[in-house]
Amino acid sequence: MAEAPGNDRSQERLQRIMGHLQGNGDPEGSRSPAAASEELKASSENTIPKRRQEVLKWNGWGYIDSKFAVNKKQQVEFLGKRYKLSGVVLPSLREWMETTFGASLDHRSAAKPHLNPEYIPPPVQNAGFLHDLKETKIAHSLDAEDRLFRAHGHCLHEIFALRGGGKFGRIPDLVVWPCSHEDVLKIVSLAVTHNVCIIPFGGGTSVSNALECPLEEKRCILSLDMTQMSQILWIDENNLTACIEAGIIGQDLERKLAERGFCTGHEPDSVEFSSLGGWVATRASGMKKNVYGNIEDLLVHLKVVTPCGVLEKSCQGPRLSTGPDIYHMVMGSEGTLGVITEVTLKIRPLPECQKYGSVVFPNFAQGVACLREMARQRCAPASVRLVDNAQFQFGHALKPQVSSIFTSFLDGLKKLYITKFKGFDPNNLCVATLLFEGDREMVLHQEMQVYKVAAKFGGLAAGEDNGQRGYMLTFVIAYLRDLGMDYYIIGESFETSVPWDRVLDLCRNVKARLVQESRDHGVQFPPLATCRVTQTYDAGACVYFYFAFNYRGLSDPVHVYEQIEIAARNEILANGGSLSHHHGVGKLRKRWLKSTVSDVGHGMMLALKNHVDPKNIFGSQNLL
Amino acid sequence: MAEAPGNDRSQERLQRIMGHLQGNGDPEGSRSPAAASEELKASSENTIPKRRQEVLKWNGWGYIDSKFAVNKKQQVEFLGKRYKLSGVVLPSLREWMETTFGASLDHRSAAKPHLNPEYIPPPVQNAGFLHDLKETKIAHSLDAEDRLFRAHGHCLHEIFALRGGGKFGRIPDLVVWPCSHEDVLKIVSLAVTHNVCIIPFGGGTSVSNALECPLEEKRCILSLDMTQMSQILWIDENNLTACIEAGIIGQDLERKLAERGFCTGHEPDSVEFSSLGGWVATRASGMKKNVYGNIEDLLVHLKVVTPCGVLEKSCQGPRLSTGPDIYHMVMGSEGTLGVITEVTLKIRPLPECQKYGSVVFPNFAQGVACLREMARQRCAPASVRLVDNAQFQFGHALKPQVSSIFTSFLDGLKKLYITKFKGFDPNNLCVATLLFEGDREMVLHQEMQVYKVAAKFGGLAAGEDNGQRGYMLTFVIAYLRDLGMDYYIIGESFETSVPWDRVLDLCRNVKARLVQESRDHGVQFPPLATCRVTQTYDAGACVYFYFAFNYRGLSDPVHVYEQIEIAARNEILANGGSLSHHHGVGKLRKRWLKSTVSDVGHGMMLALKNHVDPKNIFGSQNLL
Repeated sequence: MAEAPGNDRSQERLQRIMGHLQGNGDPEGSRSPAAASEELKASSENTIPKRRQEVLKWNGWGYIDSKFAVNKKQQVEFLGKRYKLSGVVLPSLREWMETTFGASLDHRSAAKPHLNPEYIPPPVQNAGFLHDLKETKIAHSLDAEDRLFRAHGHCLHEIFALRGGGKFGRIPDLVVWPCSHEDVLKIVSLAVTHNVCIIPFGGGTSVSNALECPLEEKRCILSLDMTQMSQILWIDENNLTACIEAGIIGQDLERKLAERGFCTGHEPDSVEFSSLGGWVATRASGMKKNVYGNIEDLLVHLKVVTPCGVLEKSCQGPRLSTGPDIYHMVMGSEGTLGVITEVTLKIRPLPECQKYGSVVFPNFAQGVACLREMARQRCAPASVRLVDNAQFQFGHALKPQVSSIFTSFLDGLKKLYITKFKGFDPNNLCVATLLFEGDREMVLHQEMQVYKVAAKFGGLAAGEDNGQRGYMLTFVIAYLRDLGMDYYIIGESFETSVPWDRVLDLCRNVKARLVQESRDHGVQFPPLATCRVTQTYDAGACVYFYFAFNYRGLSDPVHVYEQIEIAARNEILANGGSLSHHHGVGKLRKRWLKSTVSDVGHGMMLALKNHVDPKNIFGSQNLL
Repeated sequence: MAEAPGNDRSQERLQRIMGHLQGNGDPEGSRSPAAASEELKASSENTIPKRRQEVLKWNGWGYIDSKFAVNKKQQVEFLGKRYKLSGVVLPSLREWMETTFGASLDHRSAAKPHLNPEYIPPPVQNAGFLHDLKETKIAHSLDAEDRLFRAHGHCLHEIFALRGGGKFGRIPDLVVWPCSHEDVLKIVSLAVTHNVCIIPFGGGTSVSNALECPLEEKRCILSLDMTQMSQILWIDENNLTACIEAGIIGQDLERKLAERGFCTGHEPDSVEFSSLGGWVATRASGMKKNVYGNIEDLLVHLKVVTPCGVLEKSCQGPRLSTGPDIYHMVMGSEGTLGVITEVTLKIRPLPECQKYGSVVFPNFAQGVACLREMARQRCAPASVRLVDNAQFQFGHALKPQVSSIFTSFLDGLKKLYITKFKGFDPNNLCVATLLFEGDREMVLHQEMQVYKVAAKFGGLAAGEDNGQRGYMLTFVIAYLRDLGMDYYIIGESFETSVPWDRVLDLCRNVKARLVQESRDHGVQFPPLATCRVTQTYDAGACVYFYFAFNYRGLSDPVHVYEQIEIAARNEILANGGSLSHHHGVGKLRKRWLKSTVSDVGHGMMLALKNHVDPKNIFGSQNLL
């Protein structure tokens, strides 16, 4: 099934496969079809440069050139050329924001255009370390922008602080860019010698405060930026494995592998920016895990530099019984035990066929029942996601001005309404988006199975286009928060995993709790509380919430938001949900960790930490 | 798909599903079809009683009433009524033993009929503990037989010692039978107070010296026999999970679940006798893992009593990102951290359809290439196993005297030889056995796929019967060692996992090494060195070796055997194989653990041990 390396068909496939992620017009040109030699050259370059601020927003999500903005006609459009939605005017979006949140173009809450240099504390210097570091010739920086850029992930309060000019209690004191495993060995060794605190940095997409520098940290804090370690060290086509430096980001990894006819298939929503090492450190989940597995299923080998040496196994046997799995002690350790330098993953030949689909259900309960049945029959496609009615309605807000390849859910459904969906209440119906991947025959077979199961639960097929749009929105929706924040709307996503029989209760109760808590905390406008089921497992599902509100009239909106999210998490836990399915714990969810894993489990995590890193060199203070 | 609980069809299915395991004639009657109420009553009873020696051999494998024996006609027959092979005479087996091993009926090495009381050391008493234990009313025993029965697993040297009368350096000083999680809490707490050493006992089937008492242990050693904790606490039909006490043995678990229309599908070769807790503690692998997963894939929740408290997670979310997975710190810990009391597993509705199959390949290399391609296409059935030519030949040795439902491989193939297999060299060909499980349509589809792939590698379908016999032999072959030991033949199995591209080299080199080392160690007869590929994964396979030789003329045969196995393990490791795929480390493979998991990994395991069990209450000294 593998294609010859770097051929046009592989490129075409990548385009198709990542179709929901990016458009054809790519400003850097690195991903457009071109001669193979050009491609191979381009492929060795990172999409995100060392000075991230040249390409990425310093105070919001994603690329500088890509954002929602209100044009002169008072309509929202999406700027840039990178995405399918780029250059498209969305006349309904403003109205949706107004009616959903009570927002108004008259009430702006614009971000500060530049960071405030006064907010940047002078770096804590460790002269001995710096001297020795310079001897190694490893690149480093004390620049304020470089340091600030690595001081945060994408939690609401972090972006809020950036928009206010970048005031953080503590930020890294210097940034260091290793280029190899050996560089990392040197840096960690020096850090141990000079008692420097290290916080590894990968894609910077965390939503758990994992990158936040501890306020009380008096030592020099080093941000260990892994992004220059982004090479695929080898591809083993016989065993279908690849050894990759841990700093590579998702889109670069998939692009480089596709040139050789392969993929990992690991596609977290952050795949454009998040890094391989970050996936391992947080136990990432990929959208298409039903075919490719989550990160723990993909992992074959790890190399981890800890303060007490290098952790790795001596063999690549596909499955072992040699004591407790040491890789599982690293997965989820969130940078507290050491830094991951190399990862060997399973790879797969690029799939012959990829096909989207969608199903409309009369209500959310029917949709959940259908997903449960698919899991029972183990016929779920690579990805299946079920959005609730509020998210279905949101599709309407993204209706484009002119007919184009991008049309809204409702547009696509309009004709069908008249005939097929006559009995469905538009305020109750919900949609599942589907993504099939595999060889053609398998995909066709699976499609048949899935639509047959769906029909049993009143689900009606609603077309491929609606499915593809649903997945594409995942990547664009992150940009929407920045627009909202220009108009007093703040919001965040959070997630959980839960046994099947609690899914419906949990979704209903958490949304109700969000509404109730908003009221109790003085939020003046009804909030948006919406969810989707994003992953299905044998024994349960992952549920993903969006929560946002208009904060006009509140003096400390971020605090209010955080109090409400805490209440929501308590509601999740009370309904049998977990502390996290894939976002991780970081510092945001630390308070609940001990009760989640029991005192003994918590003590075991601490014991690992104290053994591997007794001086707390990896001092992010995540988890424990 | 689930059937009504306890109905006849479920029973039929269980009979069919475990068909390769047991025959229809069951002396206890607990597994023969009967009225549902009778069944439910019977199901609450354990197949193996508290006094194991009433049913199980004290110095060999399996049931007392089931064994190979030489009859008056100098023919081997299999006694008893439990298995399909029971009551069958195997006239070719003697000749096979003679030609393969140079064994002779004239040279007997019979086992001592009874244990030698002089060999049983008086129990080390801990008066304070015993006093407090009696207060709890928890059952216990100081009986010599009870203690000896729990002093060993089934390593060659253990069985050899038993056959000599039962001389061990150290055995447990008392046996305790908890009946509940609370009982275990009390016992562990008393052990901590009185400094008693605990070694948990489940099925007693380990082949890693895991149950061996450390010679230097001066404290009272308590064998914590978990077998009385064998209840299914609940079955959740919505989430398809079941919470089960950890002492249940495999056959009882599947039987009880089948009465409700479910199964776990977890079927290690030891499933007749091994326990759920043991599976977790050793990271067990099941024959049908392609459908059901290995133990780590089946696990939803654990309750573990450690000296510092109870380890468990607070939720049953199907997948978490809440730090390093604490269950993975327990899986593979081999009884060194605590004792597992309750396990929640995924269950599945009993499959609608089960079908065997077999494929003959012209040689082993073609067979391995075919299995590799099946893994690549992910079309491997529930189980696929590839035996080499020596094991294929062994099938001939099990040719029954009279035509019966049990006929040998070669018998089944005889007619085919003339037509289909004309070009195959009987000294080179090898066989894959197949087991399909699922709904009828899926099984048919998978069969088609599998035979299509097989054809590409010169594989020819060789019938269902040959497949079923292959699996059945797995359960009977364990009995064969006892027969061999009556005639100076000693042997053992060991296993590894290895990347696909090393499978062939590893198989060839390890077999060659076994032959060479046998010669070098003065073994007078050519040994039997044979292997099969028993599990396939995306990136590699599990390889399982049998090694046996005639030890006539050797003064210390067990030592010679052990030296050769050590050399074989070094050969495995040198060929990219792992230390163990599923047998575990125990004490037998400790010497290689540190180099397998690196100093850091080993230190992390030690750190967990020292934190959870600083007084080394769980003092089996496995792993570390």
